[in-house]
Amino acid sequence: MIRDDIRQPTREGVLDAADKIAAILPPTPLLPVTIDGVRCWAKAEVLQPVGAFKVRGAWNRLSALTEAERARGVVAVSSGNHAQGVAGAAKRLGIPAAIVMPRNAPQVKLEATRALGAEVVLYDRPGEDRDEVAAKLVEQRGAVLVHAFGDPWVIEGQGSAGIEAEGQLGRTPSRFIACCGGGGLAAGLALACPEAAIHVVEPQGWDMVGQSLAAGEIISVGASPPATICDALQPDATKPVNLSVLQGRAEPGVVVTDEEVRAAQRFAFAKLRLVVEPGGAAALAAALAGKVPLDESTVIMLTGGNTDAASFAAMLTAP
Amino acid sequence: MIRDDIRQPTREGVLDAADKIAAILPPTPLLPVTIDGVRCWAKAEVLQPVGAFKVRGAWNRLSALTEAERARGVVAVSSGNHAQGVAGAAKRLGIPAAIVMPRNAPQVKLEATRALGAEVVLYDRPGEDRDEVAAKLVEQRGAVLVHAFGDPWVIEGQGSAGIEAEGQLGRTPSRFIACCGGGGLAAGLALACPEAAIHVVEPQGWDMVGQSLAAGEIISVGASPPATICDALQPDATKPVNLSVLQGRAEPGVVVTDEEVRAAQRFAFAKLRLVVEPGGAAALAAALAGKVPLDESTVIMLTGGNTDAASFAAMLTAP
Repeated sequence: MIRDDIRQPTREGVLDAADKIAAILPPTPLLPVTIDGVRCWAKAEVLQPVGAFKVRGAWNRLSALTEAERARGVVAVSSGNHAQGVAGAAKRLGIPAAIVMPRNAPQVKLEATRALGAEVVLYDRPGEDRDEVAAKLVEQRGAVLVHAFGDPWVIEGQGSAGIEAEGQLGRTPSRFIACCGGGGLAAGLALACPEAAIHVVEPQGWDMVGQSLAAGEIISVGASPPATICDALQPDATKPVNLSVLQGRAEPGVVVTDEEVRAAQRFAFAKLRLVVEPGGAAALAAALAGKVPLDESTVIMLTGGNTDAASFAAMLTAP
Repeated sequence: MIRDDIRQPTREGVLDAADKIAAILPPTPLLPVTIDGVRCWAKAEVLQPVGAFKVRGAWNRLSALTEAERARGVVAVSSGNHAQGVAGAAKRLGIPAAIVMPRNAPQVKLEATRALGAEVVLYDRPGEDRDEVAAKLVEQRGAVLVHAFGDPWVIEGQGSAGIEAEGQLGRTPSRFIACCGGGGLAAGLALACPEAAIHVVEPQGWDMVGQSLAAGEIISVGASPPATICDALQPDATKPVNLSVLQGRAEPGVVVTDEEVRAAQRFAFAKLRLVVEPGGAAALAAALAGKVPLDESTVIMLTGGNTDAASFAAMLTAP
C-alpha cells in the first residue's frame, strides 16, 4: 500500500495555499508559445523572486508552523531551488533555517541560499547520506524538516501554480507538462485541476517517478545512475505521499535527454527571452521533442531559472 | 520652434491606445528588483510576443489605418525591434508590410521579421540613406510610412506601457527610466504619467535626445559616432514631435557605456532570469551605475530581448 503516516494533501489544501500565496506573490505570467503550429502556454515560474516555483511549497509549509515550531527553526535538504524557497520564506517569517546542500551544487545556488540568510550545511554527493545529515540537525535542534516534495503542505503549495494557471487561462488546462524530481509539483497540479492530464518529465536515467508509476511501488535510482545536466531533478526516489496522489492519475512518465533539454533552453532563450535552467526546461524539452500531445489548453511548466553564466553560455554555443 | 506639421500626441491618445493594446496583449510583468538596497520595479517588455515594447506603437498605428490605407500597405525603417512590431501587427491585421533594415542588423532580428511575413528591404548602414530608400517605397506603393518614433500614434502606443505600470504599481510611478533611441517610448511615458519624472538613457556617443534636450533644438549624430553594442538605440536624430513632448518635461539625459550595459545584461540574467538585449538594458545600466536616483516607485523599462546566442554567450563570459 502506497501510504505513509503523514496527512494526505487535498484539493482544499491547494485552494487554501493558492490564497496564501496570492497574498504575497503576484502570479507568474502564462506566456503563449507556439510549438509545431500549436499555440500552447508556458507558466514562467522562473520569474518567481527566488527563480523557481519552490517558493510556493516552502511558503505554504513555513507559514503553517506554530509559534513554538518557528522558534526552533527548519531544516531542508536541497540541491538548490527548494533551498532558496525555504531560505526566502524563512527570512520573510523570521525563522532560522539550515539547508543541507551537496558540495557540488551549482555555485550560484549555494551563494543565493546563503545570501537569503540561511545556514548552508554541505555534504559530499556520492559519499554521505544527506537525509542522515538532516535528521541529525532536526534531532539536535528540535527543528521541523521541510521535505522538498514528500510533504502535504509542500505539495499543496506547489499546486497553487495550477490554480493560478487555470485562472489565467480562463478554463481548466487539458494537460500540465511538469518537470519532475520527486513529484511534489506534479502531485500538487493533479490535486489542483482534477480534470487535467498530468505528464511527468524526468531526465534519462533518473525517471524514478515514471518507473514507480509503472511498477505501482517506489523504485529507487540504481547505484550508478548516468550523469545528467538536470541538477534539480535528481532525487533517489519519490515518496509514498507523492506516489499515492499520482498513481492512477498521472500519464505514463516521459524521459528526456540532455540534448533535448539544451534544445529547450535555447528555444526559451530565443523565443521567450527567458533564462531556464536544465531541470526547469525538461517539460518544454518533452513538448518540443513531440513526446507529449499538445493542444491550445496545454500548460508547460518552466520551473526554474537558476543557472550560472558559464554553463548557460556553453549551452548557448554548443554545436 | 520645435514642431512639425503632424498631429501632436496627447494623454487621451495614450489612454485610448492602452485600451486597444489591453484588448490584444496581456500586461507584461512588473517585477521587483532591489538595487543598492532600494526595491524598485522592472517592466519586462522583453516578454512581449515580439520580444520588445515596439509592438505597442505599431499596433496603435496600424489599427488606426483606414481600409484604403491598409490595402496599400505600410513601410517602416528599423534595425529590428520596430521591424518586428510592425511586421507582427501587420500580419495580425492582414496588411502588407515592407521593412527597410540595415544589412548588418543582428541576424536574429532579420530572420524574425521575415518569419512574421514582412518583406525585408536591406540597405548598407553607412553608405545609403535609409529614409530615402523608405520614401521611394512609400511613393511607389502609396503606402503609409510608420516611423519608429516620430509619429503621434506610435508615441501614444508606447505610452500604454506607462498606463499599465501605473495600474500594476497601484500608484503613479515617481520616475520612469527609459532606454532611449529616438524618444518614442520616453515621450509616450511622459504623456501617460504627467507627474512622473522621465529619465532618458542613451549609449555613449549616441545621446542625441539628451543633447537635443540640453540645446533646445534637434542635434544630429556626428559623421563618425563611436561604436556601441546598443544596436537598437542608434537613430541619427530625434524628431520634432518627440522633442516637443520631452522639452521641459524630461530630466537631463543620462549616458551609459558598453561595459555598464553588459553589467546590466548580466544582472538581468542572474537576478531576473530575463534575456535582455544591449539596447534594452540601457535603463537598468543607468540604475545600477548610480546615475539616476532610485526609490520604491521607480520603474525601469527593460525594452527588448532580441539578441543572438553567440553575442549573449560572449557577454556572459566576458571578463
